[in-house]
Amino acid sequence: MSHLGLAREPNSLENTQVFEFSITARSGRARAGLLTTPHGVVKTPLFMPVGTQGSVKGISPRELKEIGSQIVLANTYHLLLRPGPERVRALGGLHWFAAYDGPWLTDSGGFQVMSLGDLRKIDEQGVTFRSHLNGDLVVLTPERSIEAQEALGADIIMAFDECPPYPSSPDYLKASVGRTLRWLERSLKAKTRPDQALFAIAQGGVDLELRRTSVLATVAFDTPGFAIGGLAVGEPKEDMYPAVELSTRLLPDHKPRYLMGVGHPEDLVAAVALGVDMFDCVYPTRTGRFGYALVPEGRLNLKLSRYLDDPRPIDPACDCYACTHYSRAYLSHLVRAEEILALRMLSLHNLRYLHRLMEAAWEAIQSRDYGAFAREFAGRRFREGIPPWFTLALREGGHWG
Amino acid sequence: MSHLGLAREPNSLENTQVFEFSITARSGRARAGLLTTPHGVVKTPLFMPVGTQGSVKGISPRELKEIGSQIVLANTYHLLLRPGPERVRALGGLHWFAAYDGPWLTDSGGFQVMSLGDLRKIDEQGVTFRSHLNGDLVVLTPERSIEAQEALGADIIMAFDECPPYPSSPDYLKASVGRTLRWLERSLKAKTRPDQALFAIAQGGVDLELRRTSVLATVAFDTPGFAIGGLAVGEPKEDMYPAVELSTRLLPDHKPRYLMGVGHPEDLVAAVALGVDMFDCVYPTRTGRFGYALVPEGRLNLKLSRYLDDPRPIDPACDCYACTHYSRAYLSHLVRAEEILALRMLSLHNLRYLHRLMEAAWEAIQSRDYGAFAREFAGRRFREGIPPWFTLALREGGHWG
Repeated sequence: MSHLGLAREPNSLENTQVFEFSITARSGRARAGLLTTPHGVVKTPLFMPVGTQGSVKGISPRELKEIGSQIVLANTYHLLLRPGPERVRALGGLHWFAAYDGPWLTDSGGFQVMSLGDLRKIDEQGVTFRSHLNGDLVVLTPERSIEAQEALGADIIMAFDECPPYPSSPDYLKASVGRTLRWLERSLKAKTRPDQALFAIAQGGVDLELRRTSVLATVAFDTPGFAIGGLAVGEPKEDMYPAVELSTRLLPDHKPRYLMGVGHPEDLVAAVALGVDMFDCVYPTRTGRFGYALVPEGRLNLKLSRYLDDPRPIDPACDCYACTHYSRAYLSHLVRAEEILALRMLSLHNLRYLHRLMEAAWEAIQSRDYGAFAREFAGRRFREGIPPWFTLALREGGHWG
Repeated sequence: MSHLGLAREPNSLENTQVFEFSITARSGRARAGLLTTPHGVVKTPLFMPVGTQGSVKGISPRELKEIGSQIVLANTYHLLLRPGPERVRALGGLHWFAAYDGPWLTDSGGFQVMSLGDLRKIDEQGVTFRSHLNGDLVVLTPERSIEAQEALGADIIMAFDECPPYPSSPDYLKASVGRTLRWLERSLKAKTRPDQALFAIAQGGVDLELRRTSVLATVAFDTPGFAIGGLAVGEPKEDMYPAVELSTRLLPDHKPRYLMGVGHPEDLVAAVALGVDMFDCVYPTRTGRFGYALVPEGRLNLKLSRYLDDPRPIDPACDCYACTHYSRAYLSHLVRAEEILALRMLSLHNLRYLHRLMEAAWEAIQSRDYGAFAREFAGRRFREGIPPWFTLALREGGHWG
């Protein structure tokens, strides 16, 4: 990749058939698959690092490739405000702009706009909000979201939706589900680029009747992939997993399923058991910036003095740069000294941890024994007993008993 | 390099003859040389990145090697307070601790202690100061500095000295020069490891008589290398360069000369002209963190809006990761968005810029035409006229007229 390449037309590919999803193996309801995009074929299940402003915090594209990242997510809300999608388009789209030539996915901006709280107003037309950067009034509609996402040029773009807070009243949730469906229709109508796949998002909170209505109505639009939205927003896991289970049961088997905003290792393992294929979350990079390192048993808090003399790597089984070069003692020193290298290395390790987890899940599904993998994971992760929601996910996924 | 190697005795090398300095070419008073250390042979002139707390801010050891860093500097003052030199020794010394297996240099702690101002007290014994981290009272003496530097295990260690502020009264300067010489004697007496080279530091401010006295008395100790200290602390360049010129004239020809704390490109070119071989400074990484990129013409302020749509790399002649992957527009976006990748990429580029500058200086000296190189540099750098101090350095170095 070179900046000289900026002269060419970005994403001039015209073949919509470039999106394909094929399932290579199954274990219970878990699936191993191959998703073909204009910028490469990726293996599912997979976790997508979040490059909020067009950069996965502290990590270079070279490192993303080295640790096995397959798709990178960018946030339309942030890029809309700065530097502006039209500017990104002029610089060749996200692939050239951010020098990551693998597949990208952009969200619709909806989720982040919702989280502005009192700064935003929702109506049928869209969302009006004040920029958190300069207070400017901005209107985001399905049409503007798609226009922005077309300018950004990701391989996968998302329908503009509303992600209601938890808890929301039944009436509000119901109205919101209807609006999100109408916004999906408008999103599809606004779409002009044939080289991008638009994924629809089902909502419905943890109300299973509403979730069913939303999923079935969404599936009718027959988009190349579907997302499960509106979960992992504060609800108990006992309420979240039935909604995931219902969603994957109702979604078409031959299309990829993306559970949005989920990135805790135990959630990845449980949701894959139920047939989810894709995930994204800021958790691995954010918790890394706070000094935590993901390990099979949970996470190490490297701010604790017990690590200051610990010559071991974070995880002897990990092949990331941090684990093959540094002791916990050094990383713990860097965390205390607030060195940039600390958050860089912990972010790198945590992303690699999730990628290794999904690679191991893929292997287990290929070997038709996802249950054994998930139980072994749970044995290390939940030393004080496996929580019921996890057991339920495995059981419903056909991996238990 | 692997953490498994921690089991071996750190730096068990017993051969003091491993330090050698040979001059391979000369151009006027500029010299190209090879310095052999226990952890590798380096080419001079060279610039040393500063890894204050045992990490060059934001840059990994792999990247340091890729951009041509040859020696990395660490600050004894900072490591003394955190994590403690004995802890670093237990973890294999700096080479293993920080996973950089090339040569290291540690300063003596003197310079940073001096800059604490009212928080410190100097007497014949040493310096008493309060830790900037927790207020603890700490005493740093020549003996403790050497003990700490032996525990840290760098290839090159520095005598404990006083770097007086600018301006200082003639009386103070004179007393300080005497104390620094006595501290040098005590530093050498305290030294026990045969596998580390101790460099003496000449002081004297910009008082040429005192500078002469200091250099001559320092040279008498016949250490394997000499540093020029106490400059670039706020004095005008018209006063600094005569002190550099006098120092390199009086220092032995066959030993390396290290001008401490100097890192502006124009100073490197001027001081190499006068026969300086080594430099260190936080400037390239610090100015990078502030959003500046070094270029032959000076530096680009990437916070300016003019770069937001600029598709060009920082410097088309540069081979660093930032210049071969990113536009000014993207980097400018990252700077505004306060993304970690921005300071990481600008630090990397700025270090590479200084390394490329010193590599070009080396080539020019090998070709016996340092004058042409320095004049070409000056033509781009000083578009509003070459300053007299620069011309003087070239003239005194035998590169002009």
